[in-house]
Amino acid sequence: MTSPEEWTLQSLSLRWKQGDLQILDQRLLPQTEQWLAIEGIEDMVSAIQALKVRGAPLIGVAAALALAEEGHRLMAQQEGGARQDFLSALASARRSLADSRPTAVNLMWALDRLWQRVETENNTAPGADEPPGSSDATFLGMEKISVALTEEARAIFAEDVQLCERIAKQGASLIENGEGILTHCNTGGLATAGVGTALGVIRKAHEQGKKIHVYVDETRPLLQGGRLTTWELSCLGIPHTLICDSMAASLMAQGKVQKVIVGADRIAQNGDFANKVGTYSLAVLCFYHRIPLLVAAPWSTVDLNCRTGAEIPVEQRQAEEVWGLSGAQNSPVYNPAFDVTPHELVQHWILDRGVYSQQEVAGALKKEF
Amino acid sequence: MTSPEEWTLQSLSLRWKQGDLQILDQRLLPQTEQWLAIEGIEDMVSAIQALKVRGAPLIGVAAALALAEEGHRLMAQQEGGARQDFLSALASARRSLADSRPTAVNLMWALDRLWQRVETENNTAPGADEPPGSSDATFLGMEKISVALTEEARAIFAEDVQLCERIAKQGASLIENGEGILTHCNTGGLATAGVGTALGVIRKAHEQGKKIHVYVDETRPLLQGGRLTTWELSCLGIPHTLICDSMAASLMAQGKVQKVIVGADRIAQNGDFANKVGTYSLAVLCFYHRIPLLVAAPWSTVDLNCRTGAEIPVEQRQAEEVWGLSGAQNSPVYNPAFDVTPHELVQHWILDRGVYSQQEVAGALKKEF
Repeated sequence: MTSPEEWTLQSLSLRWKQGDLQILDQRLLPQTEQWLAIEGIEDMVSAIQALKVRGAPLIGVAAALALAEEGHRLMAQQEGGARQDFLSALASARRSLADSRPTAVNLMWALDRLWQRVETENNTAPGADEPPGSSDATFLGMEKISVALTEEARAIFAEDVQLCERIAKQGASLIENGEGILTHCNTGGLATAGVGTALGVIRKAHEQGKKIHVYVDETRPLLQGGRLTTWELSCLGIPHTLICDSMAASLMAQGKVQKVIVGADRIAQNGDFANKVGTYSLAVLCFYHRIPLLVAAPWSTVDLNCRTGAEIPVEQRQAEEVWGLSGAQNSPVYNPAFDVTPHELVQHWILDRGVYSQQEVAGALKKEF
Repeated sequence: MTSPEEWTLQSLSLRWKQGDLQILDQRLLPQTEQWLAIEGIEDMVSAIQALKVRGAPLIGVAAALALAEEGHRLMAQQEGGARQDFLSALASARRSLADSRPTAVNLMWALDRLWQRVETENNTAPGADEPPGSSDATFLGMEKISVALTEEARAIFAEDVQLCERIAKQGASLIENGEGILTHCNTGGLATAGVGTALGVIRKAHEQGKKIHVYVDETRPLLQGGRLTTWELSCLGIPHTLICDSMAASLMAQGKVQKVIVGADRIAQNGDFANKVGTYSLAVLCFYHRIPLLVAAPWSTVDLNCRTGAEIPVEQRQAEEVWGLSGAQNSPVYNPAFDVTPHELVQHWILDRGVYSQQEVAGALKKEF
């Protein structure tokens, strides 16, 4: 057993040191805190698909670390082998990870970033022009690429911590003392490498001494709110109340909700965004009750290739996730993991690079930094 | 074991013959079909509170039959006793039943109706003026009251069957061929003595040969949609899809829902109504997506003592119903069983006495027939 302080990187649900990548199995929370060793790409792909690892930013960080680990694993296997085989195997690992979930774009963003680094290192590594076969230069090239991958993955982890901090700080300025804040799904320390996105904002406002009360949508079907967000809020001592998703409207009608704040899995160029199913429902309820809807996410959630939300692919998941509770095994099920909220229902986009209003968002999102 | 054909009254989840009242335990559906004998008032009160018996109209019918059975039981116990004691015990049974759930008004309506009958019979029964003590006249009086109670309870059952039929027929005329219809909770044969209210309308439209597709909200926390409505629709062979409550908005945005039809637990004089929590959320979503919201209920759901929905008491239920799934036992819970939808969000009220529009409803509901 490794003692906690030995980890090089450690977040609430991810820990890594060279050769050892572990995740906290989020399917078992809050009853059981069980860490799982990720032994290879297939482990990580199935952990992502089963939502053992979840949260758009965390999926990106976890996939990056898994790909870096795979680089070292492949290098060890192919010592003396051809660099081309090494690169093909690495590319295949990247594709498996990228295909594991279709909606959150941070995953693709992190993998693309690592791959750019692979290409740069490959072009400048010793032995790049050698024919297939064993040579010291080939091994040195693989090593250089693997080390660079680890460096890049560690940078993504470290940056995510900082991004969360900036999002939290900027977002907290929009929260007033005494407000009731409703949130959906889990967007906290479990969903990122840092303090979270939407839940990070809430945490920061609480730490600033603002008296707030958080209403937590349980978030069917997989209950990320009921299982994970309540767990985080309880650990942090932040006052909160758990509700079923269908009860949010009733709270709003009673004037108990002053802000709704959610995360995002992908933001289109016009500000439309995909997030956990139920978010669009909340957005419409906010519109009707004149409650500001805030979206908090890192810049890596923005997909400049999507002009509008209509271009965002929405993952359909298994019927069992819905049936499980009610035993309605004879009935067909519609189970989209996400829904898309049009930009006109959002008041502010809280990104690490700044807070944008309706008027500002389209201009801001077009701009590459 | 009694064979099915021996019952005097039989609906999908309630059966009775003199001296024997049984309910189908709706908490165990769809996995198990288990009938429970109701041995006394306490049995019925706890069955209602635990939602073993549920559905506003059915609760009224079931409570009426339970009170009638109690009359016969008390008469048997007090043979030769004072009629005043009999009446006090009956009044106490009535109060226990009336207090079992606060929101659905059909319960109070049915019990009030039985009690008027008790008073009429009491005033005209032999021995009404006799002093306390044993006498044949007192016994005859108790018998007359008990027999009248059974008669009245049977009439309420029979009328509910007819009311459902009228609601179904009138409502079905509002459903067009090819429509997608979304419904919430369970309002079918399990919730009434007849074919149901909102689900009765859907069933009738299907029987008329209209090609419809039903979207069923699972209806957290107790999953009446997922457990009961899907079960009824499967039995009836009506095409349907189960969704989580939070997914309705996403379906609406895709143009898959042409009507939303729900039941009601209490309708105020101005048309505001209480129904299973989540209904108000659907009503707002209907408003935003310009989808007609239809409410189907018997006239006994109208409470002429409530001017607006603000006067309808909303039952708060135990945290365990929400916790159960997610294991968030450390978190406070808000768990209202109902929410209130303002009349301006309703397109049509389908009552057994007629179908009313926005313009007509206030006038229609003021009118006692």
